[in-house]
Amino acid sequence: MIVILKHNTKEEKRNQLIDWLKKQGVDVHVSQGEYQTVLGMIGDTSKIDKDLVASLEIVDSVKVVTDPFKCCNRKFHPEDTVIQVGDAKIGSGSFCMIAGPCSVENEEQIVGIAKAVKASGANMLRGGAFKPRTSPYDFQGLKATGLELLKIAKAETGLPIVTEVMGVNDLPLFEDVDVIQIGARNMQNFDLLREVGKLRKPILLKRGLANTVKELLMSAEYIMAGGNDQIILCERGIRTFDDYTRNTLDLAVVPVLHELTHLPVIVDPSHATGVAKLVRPMALAAAACGADGLIIEVHNDPMHALCDGAQSLLPEDYHKLARDVEQIREVIAK
Amino acid sequence: MIVILKHNTKEEKRNQLIDWLKKQGVDVHVSQGEYQTVLGMIGDTSKIDKDLVASLEIVDSVKVVTDPFKCCNRKFHPEDTVIQVGDAKIGSGSFCMIAGPCSVENEEQIVGIAKAVKASGANMLRGGAFKPRTSPYDFQGLKATGLELLKIAKAETGLPIVTEVMGVNDLPLFEDVDVIQIGARNMQNFDLLREVGKLRKPILLKRGLANTVKELLMSAEYIMAGGNDQIILCERGIRTFDDYTRNTLDLAVVPVLHELTHLPVIVDPSHATGVAKLVRPMALAAAACGADGLIIEVHNDPMHALCDGAQSLLPEDYHKLARDVEQIREVIAK
Amino acid sequence: MIVILKHNTKEEKRNQLIDWLKKQGVDVHVSQGEYQTVLGMIGDTSKIDKDLVASLEIVDSVKVVTDPFKCCNRKFHPEDTVIQVGDAKIGSGSFCMIAGPCSVENEEQIVGIAKAVKASGANMLRGGAFKPRTSPYDFQGLKATGLELLKIAKAETGLPIVTEVMGVNDLPLFEDVDVIQIGARNMQNFDLLREVGKLRKPILLKRGLANTVKELLMSAEYIMAGGNDQIILCERGIRTFDDYTRNTLDLAVVPVLHELTHLPVIVDPSHATGVAKLVRPMALAAAACGADGLIIEVHNDPMHALCDGAQSLLPEDYHKLARDVEQIREVIAK
Amino acid sequence: MIVILKHNTKEEKRNQLIDWLKKQGVDVHVSQGEYQTVLGMIGDTSKIDKDLVASLEIVDSVKVVTDPFKCCNRKFHPEDTVIQVGDAKIGSGSFCMIAGPCSVENEEQIVGIAKAVKASGANMLRGGAFKPRTSPYDFQGLKATGLELLKIAKAETGLPIVTEVMGVNDLPLFEDVDVIQIGARNMQNFDLLREVGKLRKPILLKRGLANTVKELLMSAEYIMAGGNDQIILCERGIRTFDDYTRNTLDLAVVPVLHELTHLPVIVDPSHATGVAKLVRPMALAAAACGADGLIIEVHNDPMHALCDGAQSLLPEDYHKLARDVEQIREVIAK
Repeated sequence: MIVILKHNTKEEKRNQLIDWLKKQGVDVHVSQGEYQTVLGMIGDTSKIDKDLVASLEIVDSVKVVTDPFKCCNRKFHPEDTVIQVGDAKIGSGSFCMIAGPCSVENEEQIVGIAKAVKASGANMLRGGAFKPRTSPYDFQGLKATGLELLKIAKAETGLPIVTEVMGVNDLPLFEDVDVIQIGARNMQNFDLLREVGKLRKPILLKRGLANTVKELLMSAEYIMAGGNDQIILCERGIRTFDDYTRNTLDLAVVPVLHELTHLPVIVDPSHATGVAKLVRPMALAAAACGADGLIIEVHNDPMHALCDGAQSLLPEDYHKLARDVEQIREVIAK
Repeated sequence: MIVILKHNTKEEKRNQLIDWLKKQGVDVHVSQGEYQTVLGMIGDTSKIDKDLVASLEIVDSVKVVTDPFKCCNRKFHPEDTVIQVGDAKIGSGSFCMIAGPCSVENEEQIVGIAKAVKASGANMLRGGAFKPRTSPYDFQGLKATGLELLKIAKAETGLPIVTEVMGVNDLPLFEDVDVIQIGARNMQNFDLLREVGKLRKPILLKRGLANTVKELLMSAEYIMAGGNDQIILCERGIRTFDDYTRNTLDLAVVPVLHELTHLPVIVDPSHATGVAKLVRPMALAAAACGADGLIIEVHNDPMHALCDGAQSLLPEDYHKLARDVEQIREVIAK
Repeated sequence: MIVILKHNTKEEKRNQLIDWLKKQGVDVHVSQGEYQTVLGMIGDTSKIDKDLVASLEIVDSVKVVTDPFKCCNRKFHPEDTVIQVGDAKIGSGSFCMIAGPCSVENEEQIVGIAKAVKASGANMLRGGAFKPRTSPYDFQGLKATGLELLKIAKAETGLPIVTEVMGVNDLPLFEDVDVIQIGARNMQNFDLLREVGKLRKPILLKRGLANTVKELLMSAEYIMAGGNDQIILCERGIRTFDDYTRNTLDLAVVPVLHELTHLPVIVDPSHATGVAKLVRPMALAAAACGADGLIIEVHNDPMHALCDGAQSLLPEDYHKLARDVEQIREVIAK
Repeated sequence: MIVILKHNTKEEKRNQLIDWLKKQGVDVHVSQGEYQTVLGMIGDTSKIDKDLVASLEIVDSVKVVTDPFKCCNRKFHPEDTVIQVGDAKIGSGSFCMIAGPCSVENEEQIVGIAKAVKASGANMLRGGAFKPRTSPYDFQGLKATGLELLKIAKAETGLPIVTEVMGVNDLPLFEDVDVIQIGARNMQNFDLLREVGKLRKPILLKRGLANTVKELLMSAEYIMAGGNDQIILCERGIRTFDDYTRNTLDLAVVPVLHELTHLPVIVDPSHATGVAKLVRPMALAAAACGADGLIIEVHNDPMHALCDGAQSLLPEDYHKLARDVEQIREVIAK
């Protein structure tokens, strides 16, 4: 941590601050410039409240030098994490294609879509059983029944299943789920993060609509601090002033995360854009900038989907997309 | 709901859509203009997926006419809701001053601050026992012990207490809490909203950092749909490109919410700005634009606060602020 | 400027950087911590490209210590600037009320409104002659004729006039204008800023919709660097994800600017909200948080205004507002 | 235009509004639903102030049905516009690679880079002569001399040149420039748009940092309304809460613009990210989602660049990127 004092700070005030900082257990180096004095902290500064110091009358600004995230930091773990889910691998060159409907609706639907996406090269099945809906009056998912139907689809196709949990009390129902998803709205539901940190199975952690890269990593850190280091990060669009797509897909986050962390990063173009015809170009773009996978909504009958039909691809469109994603990955792998 | 068709839509396609809409249980009025055709739905459109219809090839856009929120809608409940907490009232001209430290630290601290803020005219005590922290390595609050200390402060001063719950499993501990706060990060934790909807005590619902006014009202609706209609809405800043304050306090939301809903609206200038010296001007501004109350962080010793010392007022500054807020309210009441 | 090197940077690379920095004309102090090395620059760092240094392989981050703005910086000019316009003063406790229609439409309209707002205590008249419109097909203002009509209104009422210039070639027409406005869209039209910097008359500089506080001050700096130090800053709302008002009025910028600069700061609640019924609460809030003035749209016949009728107050509503603003200023002046 | 009235609007008020609307020259169809009344306007609604109508007491909301942009609207001009610049074509499957330094610095530099990027397949040369800089104290470009140097580079390599104009008075100097760039900060400098609308040469119009898709199209409309229909649109990142890249590159705008307009759309990954190592992944992503070209900063000696060295690619990195972009285009062309 570095503290920059205001010009003309009195020595007495400066020394009071240095004494206080030392009491917090750090050493302080003073560097006197022509226009400013800089205090450099040596030691463990994690317990010092940066905002409090910054608010002091004599302080111009405070700069934090060390990253607050440790477990997920590439500096301390340079090798890519690879996550194995059934036969699928994610990370370090292994790409995963997760596909399926927004909501599980009935056995015929979920099994049919599972077969279709498997035939097109998907290696994991998604499907919502517990649905986070803005309105209490909207369809909230089939819940436990939905999870049972997902298991049937898994039994029929061999595809591992990915589905979202919305609260700690539902976790016992997720024992047979292969990858548990934490949705964007729960990215900072710290109670839930702590609970899934106790599990030993992969977590798909979606970035919140207004969360910074650092906050995403700190949420991953909550899970890893509990001992669960199987985390897949997912970009799904952020909220901006833009109004022509549901959210703004922030693809630069993919190479940025790859630099900061060893965890794999996938992209969800369906929720980001909210419109089926934008899914294909954005999926191709995500593959081109180095994503480790794609999670895409596919529905055999969007007009009768109970949820998010507008953003679902037809199986035949998914098939063509999967093929082209593969070819783009070959270009960038060279 | 109104559906605007693209120019030159073929009659056959148009009729297919009209048939489909009618199957969803609504009547459809067709209005043929020179440049566009407009379909007007009559009946209950709440089950029709707006986004799906908007994604159809022949559809230019879809406009939703009726608000999705009912219980909290002023249209159906024109009178202001007034919430009574102990001797304090909030709403319809009754103003509440909630004050206290960010975190409960020990008995001396919380009781001391409670007495000080009461002496300055506060009529409710705030204090965090369960703390939502971005980092798993930061102080997470005294939890159950913190709640006990709040009750002691209440017993000593008579001030009702307001404190945040972070998860459904902690709710049983909150039986003696007067107002339960749902924090900004949990505004769309629908499981938690549903659970507090089963209670019959006031809920302080903070707006999320990137949530629209409509989403805030829909979250209130989750609680009210469960039968709990004692909700206090709270603006605490939104996330924007601005980087000079922690968040951007969006004060226009106060008169806007007053028009849309009968629920009271308070403002939290401490978390919005994150800096003590901005709390006073923003608190005065909130009072001037018609807020029904203020929730403000006060600490007797900010330099030793375990959390958010930077944004805490000293009791003497709070005293002066409370007096001036009162005078501003007199000006606008005329 | 402070450069923080990455952990484990090789000494050779470090020394290369230090040599390069010294060639840019600064002295470099090296401070070696346990986890990082910090380089502190002493001397004139204004010519060193911060972003370039930050992009180097061995650099973790770069912190700029000194503000890039000089002329408008309160550090170097602690006293408030007071701007005199006719009989009106702005800044350091002097409050100005600027009012008038969005567009000048005809002599009867502008003279009538000028008289009405003067009677309600306005001390300057606003009115658009050159209008920045998103669409080339919308009314673009009366241009030179509009300026002539403003001068007639000034002659009839004695009110100084404020009106917007849109391009350098129109400046000669503005000789008799008392305060020249640079609109939000032109805040970074550097050519125009340079030209008005050559004038010796007050400039009303509006903050751009997506501009930071620092950028606003740098635009003021462009004008002041040319020798014109009569600048009035104006907050008029920023663009955020919010969709219920036209823009988000960012009132915290008022006390923040007062700390950073000696220039006066006024607020435009009309353009920020775009809705007449929000103008009153936001104007009162602006006065309460310490603004040095208000610029408000008033129209005697909003239904027939050629532009922005939706956000115009009627003269009688302005009258009541002006009175209450005055009372709020008395409260905060104590 | 569609006007939705509030529930329980009195017939008299409703009829007053209908009369007023008819006076504006449109026909009004009334559609009476159970919960609302909808007024549909038939005829030319372009002169009716939508915001004003929306602000009326009895109006719930107003929906505009027809797009305000005409010349650039694909509805009225379904075929892609292809722009020819020297031997290069842009649009409808023709891809252009524009490359060069941020600023023109001297003859050796600009000619050297021009040769290097031509050898790597670039078909246009970029280079700034007039530089928009946030600070008046930063290097402002070589101006007229810079333009002369660009012409020398063109003479030596045959590459057409693209360079930014900052003000109307400089336009005469741009006679020999092949493509005139309007920068992001000037996207709504309507005076400048009008002037370049009088020219008959290609304009590269960059999207502003906080401008919507519709506003970008309206600015193109300003130019086209003047008779110049050779416009290349350019996405270069928007301003959001994100702080890890300079701006947020909004790639979904590429397919969205392709649907709304017939004009070609290129992407600038250099200014969007501000960091050289992010240029490659974002350029590949832009090609994958269907952009019609890329404008990329290349510098042979970034450490000594006078401007924006941090985001410049070395010629050898550009060479590899150009090759991979080509291959990605082959994948998506299938």
